[in-house]
Amino acid sequence: MSDLKIPRDREDDYGAAAIKARQELVRDRTDSALEHVANYSLDPAVLPGNIENFTGVAQVPMGLAGPLLVNGEHAQGEFLVPLATTEGTLVASYSRGMKLCRAAGGITATVIDDRMQRAPVFSFDNARQARAFSSWLDDNFEPIAAAAETTTSSGKLLDIQKFSVSKLLYTRFNYSTGDAAGQNMTGKATFAACAWIKQNYPGELHFLLEGQFATDKKTSIVNMLHTRGKRVVAEITLPAALVQEHMNVSTDKLWAARLRGQLGSIMSVTNNNGNHSANGITAIFIATGQDVANVAESSAMYGFTELLPNGDLYASVTLPSLIIATYGGGTGLATQRECLEIMGCYGTGKVYKLAEIIAATVLAGELSLGSAVVAEEWVQAHDDLGRNRP
Amino acid sequence: MSDLKIPRDREDDYGAAAIKARQELVRDRTDSALEHVANYSLDPAVLPGNIENFTGVAQVPMGLAGPLLVNGEHAQGEFLVPLATTEGTLVASYSRGMKLCRAAGGITATVIDDRMQRAPVFSFDNARQARAFSSWLDDNFEPIAAAAETTTSSGKLLDIQKFSVSKLLYTRFNYSTGDAAGQNMTGKATFAACAWIKQNYPGELHFLLEGQFATDKKTSIVNMLHTRGKRVVAEITLPAALVQEHMNVSTDKLWAARLRGQLGSIMSVTNNNGNHSANGITAIFIATGQDVANVAESSAMYGFTELLPNGDLYASVTLPSLIIATYGGGTGLATQRECLEIMGCYGTGKVYKLAEIIAATVLAGELSLGSAVVAEEWVQAHDDLGRNRP
Amino acid sequence: MSDLKIPRDREDDYGAAAIKARQELVRDRTDSALEHVANYSLDPAVLPGNIENFTGVAQVPMGLAGPLLVNGEHAQGEFLVPLATTEGTLVASYSRGMKLCRAAGGITATVIDDRMQRAPVFSFDNARQARAFSSWLDDNFEPIAAAAETTTSSGKLLDIQKFSVSKLLYTRFNYSTGDAAGQNMTGKATFAACAWIKQNYPGELHFLLEGQFATDKKTSIVNMLHTRGKRVVAEITLPAALVQEHMNVSTDKLWAARLRGQLGSIMSVTNNNGNHSANGITAIFIATGQDVANVAESSAMYGFTELLPNGDLYASVTLPSLIIATYGGGTGLATQRECLEIMGCYGTGKVYKLAEIIAATVLAGELSLGSAVVAEEWVQAHDDLGRNRP
Amino acid sequence: MSDLKIPRDREDDYGAAAIKARQELVRDRTDSALEHVANYSLDPAVLPGNIENFTGVAQVPMGLAGPLLVNGEHAQGEFLVPLATTEGTLVASYSRGMKLCRAAGGITATVIDDRMQRAPVFSFDNARQARAFSSWLDDNFEPIAAAAETTTSSGKLLDIQKFSVSKLLYTRFNYSTGDAAGQNMTGKATFAACAWIKQNYPGELHFLLEGQFATDKKTSIVNMLHTRGKRVVAEITLPAALVQEHMNVSTDKLWAARLRGQLGSIMSVTNNNGNHSANGITAIFIATGQDVANVAESSAMYGFTELLPNGDLYASVTLPSLIIATYGGGTGLATQRECLEIMGCYGTGKVYKLAEIIAATVLAGELSLGSAVVAEEWVQAHDDLGRNRP
Repeated sequence: MSDLKIPRDREDDYGAAAIKARQELVRDRTDSALEHVANYSLDPAVLPGNIENFTGVAQVPMGLAGPLLVNGEHAQGEFLVPLATTEGTLVASYSRGMKLCRAAGGITATVIDDRMQRAPVFSFDNARQARAFSSWLDDNFEPIAAAAETTTSSGKLLDIQKFSVSKLLYTRFNYSTGDAAGQNMTGKATFAACAWIKQNYPGELHFLLEGQFATDKKTSIVNMLHTRGKRVVAEITLPAALVQEHMNVSTDKLWAARLRGQLGSIMSVTNNNGNHSANGITAIFIATGQDVANVAESSAMYGFTELLPNGDLYASVTLPSLIIATYGGGTGLATQRECLEIMGCYGTGKVYKLAEIIAATVLAGELSLGSAVVAEEWVQAHDDLGRNRP
Repeated sequence: MSDLKIPRDREDDYGAAAIKARQELVRDRTDSALEHVANYSLDPAVLPGNIENFTGVAQVPMGLAGPLLVNGEHAQGEFLVPLATTEGTLVASYSRGMKLCRAAGGITATVIDDRMQRAPVFSFDNARQARAFSSWLDDNFEPIAAAAETTTSSGKLLDIQKFSVSKLLYTRFNYSTGDAAGQNMTGKATFAACAWIKQNYPGELHFLLEGQFATDKKTSIVNMLHTRGKRVVAEITLPAALVQEHMNVSTDKLWAARLRGQLGSIMSVTNNNGNHSANGITAIFIATGQDVANVAESSAMYGFTELLPNGDLYASVTLPSLIIATYGGGTGLATQRECLEIMGCYGTGKVYKLAEIIAATVLAGELSLGSAVVAEEWVQAHDDLGRNRP
Repeated sequence: MSDLKIPRDREDDYGAAAIKARQELVRDRTDSALEHVANYSLDPAVLPGNIENFTGVAQVPMGLAGPLLVNGEHAQGEFLVPLATTEGTLVASYSRGMKLCRAAGGITATVIDDRMQRAPVFSFDNARQARAFSSWLDDNFEPIAAAAETTTSSGKLLDIQKFSVSKLLYTRFNYSTGDAAGQNMTGKATFAACAWIKQNYPGELHFLLEGQFATDKKTSIVNMLHTRGKRVVAEITLPAALVQEHMNVSTDKLWAARLRGQLGSIMSVTNNNGNHSANGITAIFIATGQDVANVAESSAMYGFTELLPNGDLYASVTLPSLIIATYGGGTGLATQRECLEIMGCYGTGKVYKLAEIIAATVLAGELSLGSAVVAEEWVQAHDDLGRNRP
Repeated sequence: MSDLKIPRDREDDYGAAAIKARQELVRDRTDSALEHVANYSLDPAVLPGNIENFTGVAQVPMGLAGPLLVNGEHAQGEFLVPLATTEGTLVASYSRGMKLCRAAGGITATVIDDRMQRAPVFSFDNARQARAFSSWLDDNFEPIAAAAETTTSSGKLLDIQKFSVSKLLYTRFNYSTGDAAGQNMTGKATFAACAWIKQNYPGELHFLLEGQFATDKKTSIVNMLHTRGKRVVAEITLPAALVQEHMNVSTDKLWAARLRGQLGSIMSVTNNNGNHSANGITAIFIATGQDVANVAESSAMYGFTELLPNGDLYASVTLPSLIIATYGGGTGLATQRECLEIMGCYGTGKVYKLAEIIAATVLAGELSLGSAVVAEEWVQAHDDLGRNRP
């Protein structure tokens, strides 16, 4: 092993000297000049809590899509949507879908559930002990919730779901978390709850704070069924003539393609019977300082579409596990906050508004790509706009 | 509807004037000052093909993890790994895992498959016609491959998988794509192949270029079974004493936790029986200009771990659908290229090296978080490092 | 089309004449003599409600497995288990596992949940209407339950689970159903509940009595997570030496095989991470007059096994959707009742006892086949006992 | 433990004395008189290979459904279908669907694939060894196939599928098996192949004959994607007026219900986006001596339906893992053979004919139940016909 070692400064690790020392290490020991990485306008002093070993920034190009017309309960009117991406066609495709939807009167968006969880598993000697504990948990919900909530001012324990198997009890502690995404909040609160449980339960038990039933950073059926983060619907009814005009395809053809795509989704066993929700979600997440790794679960989607008897198309997307925040985490960083501000979504009381805008964006993107595949314009579009892609 | 309209310049949409016009729109019509978004060192002139309506950049903080000791076939030695993220603890946690693995002699990494696909579905009047077409497809593989390969210099059609159902034939056209990720390449090649098929097949058929069996931007069982992008394994055997020393936990306790986590993963039905592969993958993807939306599928993971009779731990991760590139797409942009260069992974002939480094990074992160959960240090760690998180 | 028509007798369709007429049709129009099918001792007069167009019987060979030593809360002591099957080796294999478990002190079995459901879906004009209805449903649980329970003397509506998506609300009406399996009971009760809802809900709604969320006769993750029928655990700790003696294999080797089988189950995506629960369940179902089609869902299984530090093996099976009855349906028919009586399981108050016996049988079978595969005796065993199988 | 012990006779365990001894044990030690179980016309002398500890029979009522009009490649014309069940309504419901389909010109049925497998997993020290073995397997397919086929006169090794992960290689050895179901045949053949491999592979390896990738007796995505047993389609186009006349429901309403059921199936994550294939399949399996435990996987189904522009309905079912035989196993037993003869399906060369009849039966049943749910006749029908069900 070499002496390669990343410099750290215990006193001031986000200070200029420490940052420079790390940049110099890179320049000395690798082929990278770090000219651009070292070029940023954010203030590193705010970064503790967001990153360690800070060395510079990634500059990710941001384009505006829109205007997106949303008929939400929180987002109302037209929005410009900041999309940070390096994938050609993406911004153009979303904008195309937004244009169609605007012409149809806008997208209705509704948050239908909201919960974040941590999922401890409790172990016993046998199934009967686990069953007894399960009952005890029901009987002691109030003090457990109180213990959990000592750790947070904004989180509330809503309920505890239980999944019993063998000598184990898997649980999901479901919380409301306000405008924060809440993964850390729920971790701390549930740890406190488990400590109270361990102290007060009259039998022996062991617990792990996470039994892989919250599936943080991993998509899962449990999260799709029972919500992780925001559960939000975007829906629209599109006149057949408007679709033909904007998308150059009949709703009949779209519909036949949709049926084939649905069966393909079932057979290939995806977490998403749509087209590409991850594209729009990822681009907004990068722009607005969300925890981008949550794309793994946030991009899960249920699409539901109907061809109406008159040929019009009802289209909807439901995002069952959209994990977002409008304060805390990366949302307050320099460019991230500015991008939230573009949509009027920075700070407290804004998270449902952001959820509605994201869902509406996803629906617009579904309609755009879905139409392009059918119209056989798809390959051509990428050829024109994504031309430096091999 | 208002007159909100994003300015575009047909002549020079990536020129200063067009960019400024969009920035002014934002400043005029929203509460965002775009002070930082407008601050970037990349040259917008290179952006066509990467983004439309370019308006500025997201500055995503980048920290270095490592050194990561890799015993790959392509990546050999110690690496600094650039992680772009806003999630506190992430870089520190990966570094901790890397330190353990380095002390154990490094991580062995191996690329075991490589293929990218486009998945047209063919429709017929009935199942017998579909079956006949399926045979014809086998008989005509050579000219079909030739037609596909007219569109690309580096892509090769490896085979066509077939999934028959009802009167439909779903296919997967599998390609090797060199150092590019290849989604667009395979789209164009398959479109050409389908055109040849439609022209030459002696019966009637309809096709859609994508039948949702490639599940681009969506995780799926088909992609996990049959590979999308790179299939890569990272593995290590950890001495029990070393684990205890670095992680403050016995391999026995780790193992008991692992078994509970495995059953939790099975019951919750995830695409990932590990802990948080998405964290490391996303951070590398943002840093190095990958198509970050592919996190949806690239974060899928199979973990396999064994407690050896002597108490040592064999641990491995297999990433079955890791979609990456070392040229094309966003890899050539300013900071993205520099981050690839930190690892010696920019340009042609480097994509397997990058795959090995990513897989090794993921394994290090699995060991770190997995240990922390068991050692009950997890909540504490987030409390210390992620302190501005609510 | 021919004049082929199955004779029916509106007055006495289960009388000798009608039965004979159907048998004659078969003899006249097909190559079947129906010599054995027409040979039965059951009284057709009891068959209305069990079958239409009754023409004879299938004689399915029944063998006894056991003795099975069960430490249940309801089944205590040794049992002979009637298995109706035509698969050679099956009875012998289960008996072998039962012998091992008896030597280890018997199998502990515990019913940990019990619920049967019907799952109407409610449709609205948009997501907000669906959300409003969801709240109304919570507020009106009492009268809804009352309406449901007017149709049944033994069923109780426990709760209504809700799964929201798009403009739809999928529900699961969960009931306790006593000793009956309860599919029809819950259908009638839920129909009555829906009628009450339709009459009393102040908005417009449409419903389908089944939205495919109860997945009757189909295995599903929802049923595995949330129970359909009985959720029952069987568990045992096996001394290493005993396993070696009876099974000719070390627990170490069994364990290594188990780990590989687990990953295989995850990758192939089964509803069952064990070996062959369907074998024992089906054979008991046929013998005891259960609705055998429920094997589709009843054979779902979660296995959980641990190799203990001393080399002993803790093994358990959890059947999350075991649908059984001890009265009603086919349980009262001639041979079916006799087979229930072999286990002391006929009539009211016996269904948990039967659940425990079935789970214990399944566990015995898992251990037997699991060991045989590892000991490489498996092919040989089938060769000896299943010799008329091609 | 008591002295309860099942009598066996090493000389003549299927002789009258041994059988009687077991019956006496039951009568002595349990409350069961075994009056009916002991009443059978089959000859126990033929039972070796089908059952051990033979003690009597289950008499399962059999009713005739039909006539079923099939336009198969093997099954052509009208068939009476023997259904052995104790579930009231089942025969009537299937007959109703068959009547509709007959009026529409019959059901087209087509076998589109046929393969049976055994799935050994091979273990190595690391991933590179596993990868090397994977290549060696390709290079040595011919001698491996030869080794496998030494054990069978009718089985042929078609190909070996490979699924690589960690240091393991999971495989599926796919065979054609003629008119037998072939589970045992493929087990023996694959064991021989593995023995040859172990002897000839120049490196060290360990194998388990089954790595849970054939998922025998367990439904799985792998088997649904890649076929286990017969893959068979049944399809029909139903005139709208005919549906209204026979089913008392419009195709529009059927279609709206279908869409809701599809989404329900996706969300609940079933192996079957239809209604109740298990009902018909199980009843035929019991009647005809199939291995009924295979209902677990044979009932898996892909439905695909389209509402045509003129209001007619195209409906199809695809059974991807239908495991059946027309000789061997239980098919030659007394009543079982007679039931096969009713359909002209006993003996060699008949298995595709049986596959077509089963698929057509399933489709008829789907249409019947699907219509009944929509017409809200469902609860009523069960009330009338299933009246002794609680």
